[in-house]
Amino acid sequence: MTPRPARIATMNEVAAAAGVSQATVSLVLNKAGGSRVAEATRQRVLEAAEELGYRPNAAAKTLRKGAAGLIGFVGDVVASSPFAGRIVEGAQARAWDDGMLLLTVNTGGDERLEAAAIDALLAQRVAGIVYASMYHRRLTVPEALEGLPTVVLNSEDAAGRARAVVPDEFEGGRAATRALLEAGHRRIAMINIETLASGLPAAVGRHDGYRSALGDAGVAYDRRLVREGDGNPQGGFDHTLALMSAASPPTAIFCANDRTAWGAYQALETLGLEVPRDVSIVGFDNQETLAPFLRPGLTTLGLPFVEMGRRAVDLLLGGHAADEIPERIECPLIERGSVAAPRGGRVG
Amino acid sequence: MTPRPARIATMNEVAAAAGVSQATVSLVLNKAGGSRVAEATRQRVLEAAEELGYRPNAAAKTLRKGAAGLIGFVGDVVASSPFAGRIVEGAQARAWDDGMLLLTVNTGGDERLEAAAIDALLAQRVAGIVYASMYHRRLTVPEALEGLPTVVLNSEDAAGRARAVVPDEFEGGRAATRALLEAGHRRIAMINIETLASGLPAAVGRHDGYRSALGDAGVAYDRRLVREGDGNPQGGFDHTLALMSAASPPTAIFCANDRTAWGAYQALETLGLEVPRDVSIVGFDNQETLAPFLRPGLTTLGLPFVEMGRRAVDLLLGGHAADEIPERIECPLIERGSVAAPRGGRVG
Repeated sequence: MTPRPARIATMNEVAAAAGVSQATVSLVLNKAGGSRVAEATRQRVLEAAEELGYRPNAAAKTLRKGAAGLIGFVGDVVASSPFAGRIVEGAQARAWDDGMLLLTVNTGGDERLEAAAIDALLAQRVAGIVYASMYHRRLTVPEALEGLPTVVLNSEDAAGRARAVVPDEFEGGRAATRALLEAGHRRIAMINIETLASGLPAAVGRHDGYRSALGDAGVAYDRRLVREGDGNPQGGFDHTLALMSAASPPTAIFCANDRTAWGAYQALETLGLEVPRDVSIVGFDNQETLAPFLRPGLTTLGLPFVEMGRRAVDLLLGGHAADEIPERIECPLIERGSVAAPRGGRVG
Repeated sequence: MTPRPARIATMNEVAAAAGVSQATVSLVLNKAGGSRVAEATRQRVLEAAEELGYRPNAAAKTLRKGAAGLIGFVGDVVASSPFAGRIVEGAQARAWDDGMLLLTVNTGGDERLEAAAIDALLAQRVAGIVYASMYHRRLTVPEALEGLPTVVLNSEDAAGRARAVVPDEFEGGRAATRALLEAGHRRIAMINIETLASGLPAAVGRHDGYRSALGDAGVAYDRRLVREGDGNPQGGFDHTLALMSAASPPTAIFCANDRTAWGAYQALETLGLEVPRDVSIVGFDNQETLAPFLRPGLTTLGLPFVEMGRRAVDLLLGGHAADEIPERIECPLIERGSVAAPRGGRVG
């Protein structure tokens, strides 16, 4: 960029450069001059403004125009988390449908920064604020947002008041388990990503969905087949080794995230077992840099980040709200190569 | 959130609620009233403002205060790309050091959205704009940024004028290759992520660094050991099979990204070969959901996203600029378990 003054020029600087009063500059640049400003003067002002890279002060504009077509987006670390950033993509896309921009501030979870961010966004008179979290949890909505159009995204208001949009973990867990049941499996293990005691919505919802689908299929829930991992490949690896060394090992494993499923693949490989010939696997999250590249590709549940982002902004812009709070968005089953009928198993 | 009016209350609404004139509200809320407003009245106004969730109109404030402590950040899809989002983290962290906020707009590469975003940010009188890209490339800086404090981040201005901050691909390629040379390897292959003809800075820089390090070590550059992959595991897989089936296969492979390295691991496993016992591997990118979880963990070069983000904002805030444009940030070597001495090889 050609070096230029580091600030945006002020109206006074334009006036000085054009050799006219600040009032005249204002008349010209706000096109309010009518016949009161001579054409030659008007030209000098416009050239000076161009020269100095002057931009009409939005502040003055906003005073006249009111709302500036902006929506605020406050994220903890959403934009710097590996995948949840797609939420921002969906939110901006929906805002742009109405010609609005999403002004995002990433707070990194710093409460003082968050407070400053909310103030700054409200100061821009945003039409509303999307308050987003990197992962699905129960959070406390900042008091500063009380009484403002707010939608909590990818989390739930612990107080249960704020509108919120979250993935449907329960139905996702059901769909994952149903995929294995429909392939003919009956001994289906689950390796979770956290303890149920943690109350983590993803861990609890996916587990409850698993249990519910088994129930619908008349398959008894067997505690010994349910393991509490850590959401990392190591957990998937260790628990899979343990599960497969049991007296009657499972023929399929529902891993509550793709990273856990990757560890399960590694463990089965160590045991000389093949996916899906010997053991079928279903993951969760559809991590785009992982799931498609496992061998075979991992059948998993997608997290509807883009749809959630779109829906949150849609609600802010007056979209009809669902009755339930939080509003749950479906996690689609993405079929690849990790599910097959059990060896010698009949599809029941 | 308890249902409240969807708009921010105006000063007139506060006046009506407090039973005073708008002028009085203004005097009180702008603390300009002095003794002209009775304490009881002042209290009524403050309570009404609180009640209605009134916020002083930033527009008016900005007119008085000028710059609002904001820095603009325009990203193509940076915030929704798996890892480059850390750039935003670093940029916000540096801005916050000076009590400033980073207002981010993600354009998804839509030029009309980008133009609107730049206008909106300039309208907020941001101190400057960080123009960021998801991956290291040569781009054209939008004309709207002409003459404004701008730093291009994770890309280079094709015109070579704008200040820019990029990863040091060349030194990274040298460091990756040096790690293998120092372990005693001489037949070191490279699987690139793109053709050199593409001009992609990461592909060209990492390759030239590889070639330069070989030269320094007196190892001849052997075209047959250099492959042009596609940046995905499949490319790493196919090229590794080809390299290992050659008359005199390499004892080490520098994969120009971690995804390619993952494919190399999979190919070596297929061939019954072990990393690093039979073949040493070094990757690039340090993808946090991949590199640490490969077995063994992948030795790779980190992309200094956080540092680049910090540095870009630092430059906007008056940090001393380096002489070279673009400014290159070091990619650190992250050692894990994928490098060892060649079988029967002496460390040269």
